Amino acid sequence: MIKFFEYNWQVREEWFDWCNKLEIEELLIDRKGGVGNILYTLFHIIDVEYSWIRGIQGKEDVVFQFADYNTLEKVKSLSDKLRIEIVEFLRTNLVDIKEQSVSVPWDEEKYTVDEILHHLIAHEIHHIGQLSVWSRELEILPVSSNLVGRELKSIHSY
Amino acid sequence: MIKFFEYNWQVREEWFDWCNKLEIEELLIDRKGGVGNILYTLFHIIDVEYSWIRGIQGKEDVVFQFADYNTLEKVKSLSDKLRIEIVEFLRTNLVDIKEQSVSVPWDEEKYTVDEILHHLIAHEIHHIGQLSVWSRELEILPVSSNLVGRELKSIHSY
Repeated sequence: MIKFFEYNWQVREEWFDWCNKLEIEELLIDRKGGVGNILYTLFHIIDVEYSWIRGIQGKEDVVFQFADYNTLEKVKSLSDKLRIEIVEFLRTNLVDIKEQSVSVPWDEEKYTVDEILHHLIAHEIHHIGQLSVWSRELEILPVSSNLVGRELKSIHSY
Repeated sequence: MIKFFEYNWQVREEWFDWCNKLEIEELLIDRKGGVGNILYTLFHIIDVEYSWIRGIQGKEDVVFQFADYNTLEKVKSLSDKLRIEIVEFLRTNLVDIKEQSVSVPWDEEKYTVDEILHHLIAHEIHHIGQLSVWSRELEILPVSSNLVGRELKSIHSY
């Protein structure tokens, strides 16, 4: 499970680097599919991850407005900041809590911790797949999505 | 790990259903990004999954040509057929072999079984994300990518 978070975070960093090739207007322009633009996709991934991880811990949801994070630097810095708390949680013994039932304010259903962690992983990979299409539409090489052969930065080094 | 395969297969089935809304020409038309068209994306996911799972088991690679599977029915039937062997493998005790080193004919590097299984999972989710963008470009609602709230068909029922 942890390996997927390490993978996602590393791919996310590479997309931040990739974003440097573009002007902010291109990062914010409306595109078909997904959540509608490149920068908002990255913001959305970060926001969703943080909300669910706090939800699992029974902590109150913190709502972020994209209007307050509409530059590449601000989104990247939000990612770095929120990851500190996420890493701390992921380093705890997840096996013991994986069948625990979680309820969150934005969803009427209850889910297990295990389901939520799987959801977060798939959620980020799915949205990154969308970025890769937009990247080709811009005639720019997307970030590689390969997991094999990728040197992963350990969760313990964050 | 298994839950992700169950998720991917279920989402894949829903994309097969989704494909029924389109004529074969739309499924095969060139699109920007990914592997270039909708049906080939599904074929590619299936082909890659099967090749690596056989690779892990030290079995010879079986090469499929898309030209032989260029209808929705053929790709779906290939998916059903190859899954029988994949399920059989995934039901074995993966924990015992996860650190085993694997070498395959199409890659010079060696990878662990664990790395390969992670790779396959991310590979399918990533490509499905690409389909979702093309779906919106076609003005059709994509298949939901949500993992929470999704009734998963157990690997034991395949």
